[in-house]
Amino acid sequence: MIVNVGIFGATGYTGVELIKLLGRHSHARIAFAHSESHAGARLSEVLACPFDIPLVSADDALLHKADVVFSCLPHGASAALCKRALDAGRRVIDLSADFRLRDAATYAHWYGHPHPYPDLLPLAVYGLPEVHRREIAQAQLVANPGCYPTSIILGLLPLIEAGALADPLVIADSKSGVSGAGRKPSLTTHFVEVNESLAPYSIGRAHRHLPEIEQMLNALRPGVPPEPIRLIFSPHLLPISRGILSVIYLRINALREDVLTLFNRRYADEPFVRILPAGQIATIAHAAHTNYAVISVHPVAELPDRVQIVCCIDNLVKGASGQAIQNMNVMFGLDETEGLR
Amino acid sequence: MIVNVGIFGATGYTGVELIKLLGRHSHARIAFAHSESHAGARLSEVLACPFDIPLVSADDALLHKADVVFSCLPHGASAALCKRALDAGRRVIDLSADFRLRDAATYAHWYGHPHPYPDLLPLAVYGLPEVHRREIAQAQLVANPGCYPTSIILGLLPLIEAGALADPLVIADSKSGVSGAGRKPSLTTHFVEVNESLAPYSIGRAHRHLPEIEQMLNALRPGVPPEPIRLIFSPHLLPISRGILSVIYLRINALREDVLTLFNRRYADEPFVRILPAGQIATIAHAAHTNYAVISVHPVAELPDRVQIVCCIDNLVKGASGQAIQNMNVMFGLDETEGLR
Amino acid sequence: MIVNVGIFGATGYTGVELIKLLGRHSHARIAFAHSESHAGARLSEVLACPFDIPLVSADDALLHKADVVFSCLPHGASAALCKRALDAGRRVIDLSADFRLRDAATYAHWYGHPHPYPDLLPLAVYGLPEVHRREIAQAQLVANPGCYPTSIILGLLPLIEAGALADPLVIADSKSGVSGAGRKPSLTTHFVEVNESLAPYSIGRAHRHLPEIEQMLNALRPGVPPEPIRLIFSPHLLPISRGILSVIYLRINALREDVLTLFNRRYADEPFVRILPAGQIATIAHAAHTNYAVISVHPVAELPDRVQIVCCIDNLVKGASGQAIQNMNVMFGLDETEGLR
Amino acid sequence: MIVNVGIFGATGYTGVELIKLLGRHSHARIAFAHSESHAGARLSEVLACPFDIPLVSADDALLHKADVVFSCLPHGASAALCKRALDAGRRVIDLSADFRLRDAATYAHWYGHPHPYPDLLPLAVYGLPEVHRREIAQAQLVANPGCYPTSIILGLLPLIEAGALADPLVIADSKSGVSGAGRKPSLTTHFVEVNESLAPYSIGRAHRHLPEIEQMLNALRPGVPPEPIRLIFSPHLLPISRGILSVIYLRINALREDVLTLFNRRYADEPFVRILPAGQIATIAHAAHTNYAVISVHPVAELPDRVQIVCCIDNLVKGASGQAIQNMNVMFGLDETEGLR
Repeated sequence: MIVNVGIFGATGYTGVELIKLLGRHSHARIAFAHSESHAGARLSEVLACPFDIPLVSADDALLHKADVVFSCLPHGASAALCKRALDAGRRVIDLSADFRLRDAATYAHWYGHPHPYPDLLPLAVYGLPEVHRREIAQAQLVANPGCYPTSIILGLLPLIEAGALADPLVIADSKSGVSGAGRKPSLTTHFVEVNESLAPYSIGRAHRHLPEIEQMLNALRPGVPPEPIRLIFSPHLLPISRGILSVIYLRINALREDVLTLFNRRYADEPFVRILPAGQIATIAHAAHTNYAVISVHPVAELPDRVQIVCCIDNLVKGASGQAIQNMNVMFGLDETEGLR
Repeated sequence: MIVNVGIFGATGYTGVELIKLLGRHSHARIAFAHSESHAGARLSEVLACPFDIPLVSADDALLHKADVVFSCLPHGASAALCKRALDAGRRVIDLSADFRLRDAATYAHWYGHPHPYPDLLPLAVYGLPEVHRREIAQAQLVANPGCYPTSIILGLLPLIEAGALADPLVIADSKSGVSGAGRKPSLTTHFVEVNESLAPYSIGRAHRHLPEIEQMLNALRPGVPPEPIRLIFSPHLLPISRGILSVIYLRINALREDVLTLFNRRYADEPFVRILPAGQIATIAHAAHTNYAVISVHPVAELPDRVQIVCCIDNLVKGASGQAIQNMNVMFGLDETEGLR
Repeated sequence: MIVNVGIFGATGYTGVELIKLLGRHSHARIAFAHSESHAGARLSEVLACPFDIPLVSADDALLHKADVVFSCLPHGASAALCKRALDAGRRVIDLSADFRLRDAATYAHWYGHPHPYPDLLPLAVYGLPEVHRREIAQAQLVANPGCYPTSIILGLLPLIEAGALADPLVIADSKSGVSGAGRKPSLTTHFVEVNESLAPYSIGRAHRHLPEIEQMLNALRPGVPPEPIRLIFSPHLLPISRGILSVIYLRINALREDVLTLFNRRYADEPFVRILPAGQIATIAHAAHTNYAVISVHPVAELPDRVQIVCCIDNLVKGASGQAIQNMNVMFGLDETEGLR
Repeated sequence: MIVNVGIFGATGYTGVELIKLLGRHSHARIAFAHSESHAGARLSEVLACPFDIPLVSADDALLHKADVVFSCLPHGASAALCKRALDAGRRVIDLSADFRLRDAATYAHWYGHPHPYPDLLPLAVYGLPEVHRREIAQAQLVANPGCYPTSIILGLLPLIEAGALADPLVIADSKSGVSGAGRKPSLTTHFVEVNESLAPYSIGRAHRHLPEIEQMLNALRPGVPPEPIRLIFSPHLLPISRGILSVIYLRINALREDVLTLFNRRYADEPFVRILPAGQIATIAHAAHTNYAVISVHPVAELPDRVQIVCCIDNLVKGASGQAIQNMNVMFGLDETEGLR
């Protein structure tokens, strides 16, 4: 079986990563690669990469037959092309933030303008296979999770599902490589500004990934809790190209099993979640250039109700293009690990 | 006026930084620079630096007259030479951890062996000028603060002194450049292991700086509080050479003034603490290669009892050699900023 | 068809890279992974990697059946184990320098001790598929080329074969990432020493790769030239983890075709040599994490007899483990690109 | 004595470096700091730096009295403001390339438009104190040398003055940190594009610093040589913030003294040229954050007519702002090392 895939926005970091990963996939074929600004050129002329793939405009792209279309466009720009692809009968995996929030009003609040296609929101499945595998398999439109959300949700999932949160306030101190900021030049991503520094940004509940994370965390909670989970989320820009590390601080109830056992049990059958043995600490090196979320679990000496979770991913793989392929594998009934080992 | 200074352990990162900074000091003269393993050589032969200074053994070093001796030796090795210098009548600024803990039992617990000179501990003044300026001026032995402790204590000081802590549990997520780990080669500091990664270590209340920080935070607290301050402290190794950034999470009582005003007031006369205006966030670039602690203060949206403090320093300057010179300036009645602007 | 492979020295950078690449190979199975110092442990316990492979001692390793054994041991240590594997009837691909020089006296001169198995030297085939594909297919012992030599030889090959050298003196200014120096900690590879610097070393014809390169360049030359090719070779340590870039300066005779055409023709059928079109310049980003040698060719304005060649490889892939797999593919009649695309 | 200095273009990398260095200068006072785009703001609001200096527009700047004006504007933009400052009677040190080429036609050829003030070119003194100290002392307009030119000219000076070149063709393989490309965002300076790579650019005699270097090298040559010196110049973008390393390859005549002795003699009285002893190799770490040019000299084994010179500088200090201050010190009769040790 061959899945014909199209790619919108092939020249950004997630687009190129997707093409690289698809090259190792035995059941995928690239039907088209789109770039509006470089239409007519070949990818290898635009970027330092060996992929000699022609780039086409959106109008031409939609003429190609494709079983699934990945959109690697920035948010805002993505929704319109996803809509056109859906209308043309394609299944769509959107790597942007455009279809991740279920509530159009929340979207409008965080993005400063009304959602262009609010009627599509109920259709979209949040593409975290560890939670929504069954829905993804049937989905017409998958909203591929953000990179920070993937690292934080996977780090909290077992505890939240187990009803272990003693306090609905959770702190996530997250650090990301620069590719997460996209390929568009700006002073923020200038080498000299980033290098030899570390820069927190959008702290104090100001980052657009916050509502995405809180939406999922609260949806995962069993029963009807008195108070919603609230996150203090501190993203930082790290002087590295790729990788995210989140340290999550929380207060938990006494559990029947230890936290590590809980994590091992919850993720036992997950092909892309790796729980480190006691005493090891997850680092970005554990996850870089892989589709794994690597998690370590840390009790806090003298403070039995406290726990720290460290969760690392590669923001371009499990945090974007790798997870998108994992979703495609689920959608088309392929081995979920195909192209990702 | 000229202060004659001696340096134990001149070939490590803090030793070289000290020599570099002393070169800009109008009232200091290097009386000797010590290195046991390189005695007889010149500093410029040992390191990629322009300082053509002869290195002498400890025995020879103690023959030189000096008004003050800095010890840049690793902990463990430092105490014995400090003792010899004190016995020879020198004033001593110890950059190691050997005299920072007031309690010999705490030292023994964290360092795994009894303190070699417990009778010297009561003599040692903790060399944080923002707190102990008066005592430093008179001190015979100054225990120069650790780099992580400097960044965390200065970030909390105004709130603790004001009795603003609503919860004695404080979280500090700290990230440090690699020079903090010293110049001795190890797999942990191998370029390829550090580069393009981020590695938490000694998390869960396991780092030796923890008792040093908690000792100071609790000493700063007014009145007799019911419960001691406890810190969850997560150090990380950053792929940069120098700089520390700590994000501090805490819960506070309602205050009569806003937190930023409190910080500005408390540090108004401090030459080396810089409080950023509202809306700016401190980064390592703000502090690198300077003796400043740069602090920004962040309320948390929708959570009025929560605040985040970001405090950045250069671990080799305000976190070590710069602060040591600041202490020397205080000890000898010099302009506190001499050599450090 | 399945090739059973064994690995000596699995915990170094080339060993781990080999295991990573073999994981994508459809016709290879790891029979054993050796580490003397970590025998009994699993690879994922020793390194930040997801490979849960048991590590065995050399004695145990040789009990496992294997069709081919890769040695990723450092030079010196490698020869003895290669000898034992050969004696046990295995085909061997040695990634160390131990069997690259054909002349035992040259080996003794550069390595400071006699070659331990001089009688094996005539058996060894220099494993550069672009030159020795046919011999590699039959070889019992393949000496996998060094990383610098691969980048320089491939950059010069077409011109030398064409007899185009006007001057036997060639200059190669080469820059390498730190993984080329191995995983053993030393001051040279300490993060702070490497970071934010660039360090030439072993310049002025002093590096051990010099005789390896000159041996090949002179062997490639047609006819009996009056003077041997001499190389001025300047290696530099770059503050990056992986990648080599060599700029080669030479003087050439007038050719019937332009240099770019010559390169394109020579490498037309080579799956892992990529010649950039006129106007593009090869960078390390072109080659990193791939098995390609990426080459660009540059005439020099106003100096028609001069040409500059830029050749980039990933030192751990085309410069080591990827090329070793390419050799394995050739030796076992597999598609040469298997596992390497 | 106090020199009042003005700065055009204070918010770029060379502007900020200048302000940092002037802060350590005992005889300089900043009269104004100019930025057209940030006029009205303070420097500490625009950049992560502690300098609380108001920024003024050009019109306001010229109203301030200043003894000397530094222009840190990009080439093209610099000439017009330098002209206005000269007309207002200020002495000017221009850090841009606008007044470095003596020949207006050469300027027009390399910059693609006629020089705006060709009549000012004869006035301009090329501000390399090691060559033009006497002329600089009297100059009204100093053209501060480029960073690459400083590293290459100082590396060749003693040999050229001694008439030692056996071949007028010289090769310089130069590598520069990213701050040399300025602070304006572009894809070329995007962190992810630069990081973990190395990128040659403008090779093959295409870089605008080429005519500047050749102009000086030929001017330095004694007698009337038959052929002009020609340079093959290969600049590379290094993934570091600051520093340049040039490796220079040349063929020399037999000399009466060895090359190292010649260099030591020529630079004996130069405060900012440091010649390493035999056996050491200059690295960027030797020169970073200092005003030194650090040079090492390397004979080539078996090739007695060949020599390699390694010359390292900090592109923002000796390659720009430090050298500018050195020139200012010369112009105003101050200790040449003031503010730069």
